[in-house]
This record gives sequence, structure tokens and C-alpha cells, in this order.
Amino acid sequence: MKRFLLLLFLAVANCSSAMAKPQQNTEEARQFPRNIIMVIADGMGPAYTTAYRNFSDDPNTDMVEPVIFDDIFVGNASTYPASESGYVTDSAAAATALATGIKTYNGAIGVDVNKQPVESVLQRAKTLGLRTGLAVTSQINHATPAAYIAHNESRQNYPQIADSFFDSRVDNQLIADVMLGGGTRYFNREDRDVTAEFINAGYEFAEQYDDLLKIDEGSNVLGLFAEVGLPPALDDPKDDRLAFLTKHAIRFLENPNGFFLLVEASQVDWAGHSNDIASVVAEMDDLAQTLDYLQSYVAAHPDTLVILTADHNTGGLTIGADGEYHWDPAPLHRISASVTAISKDLVKAADVESYVSDKLGFTLNAQETAQLEQVKLLSVEEVEKVLKYIIDKRTNTGWTTTGHTGTDVEVFAFGKQSQLFTGQIDNTDIAKHIFDLLDRRTSS
Amino acid sequence: MKRFLLLLFLAVANCSSAMAKPQQNTEEARQFPRNIIMVIADGMGPAYTTAYRNFSDDPNTDMVEPVIFDDIFVGNASTYPASESGYVTDSAAAATALATGIKTYNGAIGVDVNKQPVESVLQRAKTLGLRTGLAVTSQINHATPAAYIAHNESRQNYPQIADSFFDSRVDNQLIADVMLGGGTRYFNREDRDVTAEFINAGYEFAEQYDDLLKIDEGSNVLGLFAEVGLPPALDDPKDDRLAFLTKHAIRFLENPNGFFLLVEASQVDWAGHSNDIASVVAEMDDLAQTLDYLQSYVAAHPDTLVILTADHNTGGLTIGADGEYHWDPAPLHRISASVTAISKDLVKAADVESYVSDKLGFTLNAQETAQLEQVKLLSVEEVEKVLKYIIDKRTNTGWTTTGHTGTDVEVFAFGKQSQLFTGQIDNTDIAKHIFDLLDRRTSS
Ligand SMILES: [Zn+2]
Ligand SMILES: [Zn+2]
Repeated sequence: MKRFLLLLFLAVANCSSAMAKPQQNTEEARQFPRNIIMVIADGMGPAYTTAYRNFSDDPNTDMVEPVIFDDIFVGNASTYPASESGYVTDSAAAATALATGIKTYNGAIGVDVNKQPVESVLQRAKTLGLRTGLAVTSQINHATPAAYIAHNESRQNYPQIADSFFDSRVDNQLIADVMLGGGTRYFNREDRDVTAEFINAGYEFAEQYDDLLKIDEGSNVLGLFAEVGLPPALDDPKDDRLAFLTKHAIRFLENPNGFFLLVEASQVDWAGHSNDIASVVAEMDDLAQTLDYLQSYVAAHPDTLVILTADHNTGGLTIGADGEYHWDPAPLHRISASVTAISKDLVKAADVESYVSDKLGFTLNAQETAQLEQVKLLSVEEVEKVLKYIIDKRTNTGWTTTGHTGTDVEVFAFGKQSQLFTGQIDNTDIAKHIFDLLDRRTSS
Repeated sequence: MKRFLLLLFLAVANCSSAMAKPQQNTEEARQFPRNIIMVIADGMGPAYTTAYRNFSDDPNTDMVEPVIFDDIFVGNASTYPASESGYVTDSAAAATALATGIKTYNGAIGVDVNKQPVESVLQRAKTLGLRTGLAVTSQINHATPAAYIAHNESRQNYPQIADSFFDSRVDNQLIADVMLGGGTRYFNREDRDVTAEFINAGYEFAEQYDDLLKIDEGSNVLGLFAEVGLPPALDDPKDDRLAFLTKHAIRFLENPNGFFLLVEASQVDWAGHSNDIASVVAEMDDLAQTLDYLQSYVAAHPDTLVILTADHNTGGLTIGADGEYHWDPAPLHRISASVTAISKDLVKAADVESYVSDKLGFTLNAQETAQLEQVKLLSVEEVEKVLKYIIDKRTNTGWTTTGHTGTDVEVFAFGKQSQLFTGQIDNTDIAKHIFDLLDRRTSS
């Protein structure tokens, strides 16, 4: 396929000038995107997009209607880390692969197997004079965004990584112009107030989502809206949190020389680790809204490239389980909080069963009530387990792990030069293509 | 992506005649394949191809080397059945979708939701004067091949379906010219000897693989090499069974007017239902050998199109499980029989532990020996469970079901017009494209 497309591409590029429409394509095909937006859906294995399509399906029609992921799907990517870490990657090694184009060990942030720093595409973009930024739902110094900005032998060194966000420089410049997500715990520390240092360096600071509305386009911005990660999509009163952050990040970044923006739907992964299928589809919906916005942005700004992939699979999610040829997303439309939030607040409830039924959106049956009764006084963790068991049984959802699995992930792309990412690729190829596009746009 | 490719395609098709190379592509692009080979890997979800790549990896290199699936991957397909059957398909509804282009209920063989017969691409090929055939590792009247030839309200009606193989006609002709697989139980029955009827109608009959060597090219052939399905790849003394059947099927089918051949790696699914990871990779290897042969065939016969997909996912297989970021295919290289075969023959062993260690290729440790001791006198099923548990623990393989799951499957294609199958499609689109190619080749 890739070879076929290349042939076609060459053929078009060589076309005679007699035709209007193809000629226009030829001109465009020679150009490179001004803006590059890399979207990472952490942990989003192939089952997640199918689950979201089924969740979004209108059950009154025969067809399972396509969702935005279907419109922009272009291929698959392998995700394995450096051989010393085997066949299943963590988010740090995968983010380093996506950011820098090299395989490294699990836990590594922007360093190779010898713990030496490796340049990221965001750093290259900054070197080449683009504006740079990130908009994520985790803390901004979490593994994925960290690999685009910092170099650290371990993802666990959160304070050090936060320091790097200010201390690392490219040609004496701060690396990221816009950083939106969570993380006051790491940036507003007693031993070092990194946030204050950004403010002194001329950054606007935001701590409420709506603070962003008051900041001018073109500003440098640090926005930290939570102590660690943002609230889960199901629990956040803001029902378009990643789309909102992305929109404002772009507003701050836009400039004639272009920008590189990393967007991460970080909590798809967290919902997977938690084996919370209601949170999975809610985080997927938060991501889908972001992609809707990005599609309209690219329609208005065709000199933009958007790439979406996952860093790996989380949870070993399956659509159906336990021998039953069946999966029922209907209950997921009525669940109004994450399982973690429901379980935490359970002690405050006057009537536990009616509280839980209200949050889940369905009345617990006798068996489910008995299961909950057994654990409701034990611990939040035991309650969580039972609630997940009830939801998994109702929907017939399967999981094999609270960690990651090694199956290839899907790749999606649209906008200028999106055809580069089609077919079967490796996660490192994504960074390699972005480096190439950055270098060629500036040399052309 | 599909839209982009279409634009490029149109652009090329309209190119001026000034160029040599593009012009040649233009000519080719107008042509349609003489031969179409549809390969179905029953049950092969995305985790199966990643598992096979990891299994085939040379652990002494940093890279996980690409396998043939990586070279020919073009996209993904949704697999859901008619809405009355929910979101998880069985092999009958999926095969009917792939064969006829319509969604139907689980269990349906070549009939729609109203139980009315629907034409298959193989039947259309026969109508249009192509030779037609199938080569499968299940019984030839199993759900997948049956949907290309028969029309029956239930896949369970095996004798009726076997009868249809002889009784159904297209323009007064028998539908399939070549049928290779298993199934004497259904074709050589006391109440009706369907095999004899085929022989009377001029078909050569083969009951040993090597019988095929003695049959002339261009012959009509019924080859039934087992009572039901063929032996599992791990237990069959013939170590290239599907490639061998495919090669001979093509030899019998080749003719100036072209052929349609259905190839099915039927037992990928059975290994998945059985949650037997060693059998999974062995069946995948049997399929990979078949694809190797088909690649060389297409290189020599470029007027051939090969499409490969799965009908659905089986087993909820995951690469890694139980919170461990780890999957180890090494033990799978040493396992020399299917878990079912090992368990069945266990009663005959003088020393159970050394027999099992010999078959698995690793010495059972104390814990594993104790687990086996507990069940070795109970039943074959209990022994199977323990052996699978031991293999899954050693490799860290996960499963969520002994049935199917609903995640999209991968699509692969090469040869003439293979670009039609790229991107995100539905399983019914595959049949629709094949119908279109068949109709246009004969009308052009
Ligand atoms: Zn994770
Ligand atoms: Zn099956």
C-alpha cells in the first residue's frame, strides 16, 4: 500500500500542467504543514475505538454508525520498547519513541538505553522557530508530555522533571510556550516554586479553566488546573475539558511561523488501568470532541497536520467476555461518575443501595445488592471491585490486566501530509516523519 | 485517507500521455484482476498478528522484525452482525457478510435476516464463467466456506449443508470446482453418499494429502482429508498443510478466464476458543506460509488479487496479563503438540510429568508438577485447563473468553486492485468490492 501510494504520488507530482484540479493537488503535495498537532490517546488499544463506536451507536438503525475515528484511521503501529524491556511498553518508553524516534527502556523519559538525552520533535520545532505547547489531562510532567520536553532516567522523578520544564533550554529559550494540564503539586513546591519562575519569565498563569478566556492570543501560558491529573471526564463539571484546553492552546500558539502542539487524552489509560469501562467511554468521548474541533480547525487551516495514535494498550479490554457473544453499552450512558468517585463518596450516603443505583443509573438487583452489602463497610477498594464487577457483568466487558498489553495500536491522521502515516508502521516512524516534515518545511 | 487516495487516483487517471511510467500505471489501474483469492483467518484479532510477530522475533536483535502480515496490512474492518444479534458476531454471520455483502443474524449461512438466500461472490464468479474453489483446514461445510456456497438458516445443519454443496446450482452448474479440507463425516454418510455423487459428476476424489500430487491440473477435485477438521497444525505431521492445499487448489483452478478461491485458516479460531496460545502461533505460522506462497504466486501472476481478513476476534487474547508488563514467546517454540492432544494422550504415559515436560519442551517446576498431580486422574478437560494455565503463566498470555469478541479486525491485501481495501471499512465492503471487480472485469 505505501509503495502504491508513493507511485501514485510520484505520478501526480509529474502530471502535465493541463489540468486544474490535479495541478492544485500537485502544488499542495509539495508543501509541508505549517502547524503539526500530535495527539496521543494514552492506552487506547483497538478495542477502545470499537467500544466507542458501539457506545455511540443508534440502536434503532441496522448500521453501527461510524464515529470520527473511522473517518481518520490510516493504519497501525507497533509499540514494543527496547529489547531489554521485552514486548510490552510503558508510557515513558512509548512516549520517548513517539517524541524522539528511538526505542528505549521502560521508565525512560527522553533518554536512550544509555540514559543519554535524545532530542524530541517538540524541541526540534522550537529550534526551528515554531511556537510549541502541550494540552493534557494528566499532570503536565507525566510520562507522555515529559518525554517531549525533559530528559530523565526515570518517569518517577516528578519534581526533577517539573524543574526540567523550566531549566531545559533550546538555544537559550524555554522549550514550551504553552503548557495546559494538571500538576500544582510538582510546580508549586515548598522547595522550589517553578510556577513563579515561569511567571517571572513572562508566562501568564491560569489555575481555573475559565482563566484561559482572559488571556490574549499569542501569550505564553502555564495553566495548572489540578494538583495532579485533572478530574476524570465523568467527574469533571466541564464536559469538554480536553477540547477546551486544545482550543485555547492553539489560540495562544498560532503565529505565521507555525506551531507544534502535543495533545494527550491521558486518562483513557487511567480508566483502562482502573478497568472502569464507563470512564473509558467518557474519556473517549472527551477525545472525540477534541478531534471534532481539530477537524474544523484543519478545514479552516489546511496547512495543518494532525496525527493521533496510542502509546500502547491498557487493561486488555475486550468487547464481550466469558463465552457470551454479547456486549451491551446501554448501561454506560446512564453512569454519572467514575467508579472511584462513587466508591469514595459511598460512606457519606444515607442509603448506600439507592445512592449507588442513582450514580449507576440502574436499580441494583437482589444479587448485586447482596454483593455490595458484603463489602460496603470494608474499604473503598473492595467497593470499587464490586462496582466494576457489576458494570462488567451488565455490559459483558472483559479485562485481562490492570497494566498494559502489547498489541499494535491504531494510527489516525488528517490534514497536510497525513498520507505519510498510512499502513503498518512502528511508533518510532511517527517521530521520524515529523522530524522530516519540520526540517523540510524550513529548508524549502 | 480513502478520499485522498481517490483524488490521487483520479489525478493519475487523467494524466496527460507525455510520461512513460505514470502512463503504464494508468493502464494498469484500469484493469481488473483475472484471479481473486480471498483468505479468511478465522478468529484472528489484532493481538494474533502482534503475537505472531513477537513469536517470530529474533531476540538477539533490537528490532522486532516485520512478518508477512506487516508487509500486506492495509486497514481495519468492523465485524458486527445484524442488529438483532448485537455487537459480537459468530463465524456464520461474519462469513455471510464477507461472502455476500449483507449483515445477517448469528448462525445464518448465506441467508439474510428473513432467511432468504443471498448470492455470494463465489456464486457470482461461477455465473461469470470463472472457476471456483476453496481450501480450508476445517470441514469444508463449516460456517465460513459454507457461506460462500450454501444457503441455510443454521450453521448447525451440517448434513443439509453438505447436501447443498452438491445440490445447489448456478446456471445448472455445480458451484465449486475444487473443495479441499475435512468432512468425510458429512459427505460420506450412510443416508447419502455425497462424495460418490461428486465422483459420478466427474470430480477426482482425494483422501490423503499426497493424492493431490497425482491429480492433473485443471481437474475438478473433492479432497476430504479428515472426518471433521484437519488435525491441528501442531499435531499434523504435514507442516505446511494450508499452503499445500492452496497451491494445489490453484493448480486445479488456473485457466484463461480466471478463478475465485476461498482459503480459510479455520483453526486460528479453534486455537483461540481453546485458549491454546501455542496452537495459535502454530496456526498463524501455517497461515504465514500460505501467504508466502501467495506472494510468490502474485509476483508471477500479477493479474491476481489477494485479500486477507479475519471474520472476528476469538478468545480475547492479550499480549501480557495480570498487571505484568511482559510477554514471553520463548516457551512456544518448544511446545510440540496441541494442549488437547497432550491431555488426551496423558493416560497412556508411564511417567506423566516427564511425558508432559517432553511435550511442552520445558521441565515442570515443583509448583507446576503439584498442579498437574491434582488433576491428572480427573478428566482430560481438567488436565487441559491446568496445562493452559501453566503455558499462560510461563508466557504471561491473557484471555477473556472461550467465545468471540467484537473488536475490529485487520485487513490485508496485495496484487491487482488491492488499494480498494485500504483504511477503515466494514466487513460487507469486502464482498461489495469483489462483486464490483467481478462485474467490471467481465464487462470491460
Ligand atoms: Zn498506562
Ligand atoms: Zn469461532
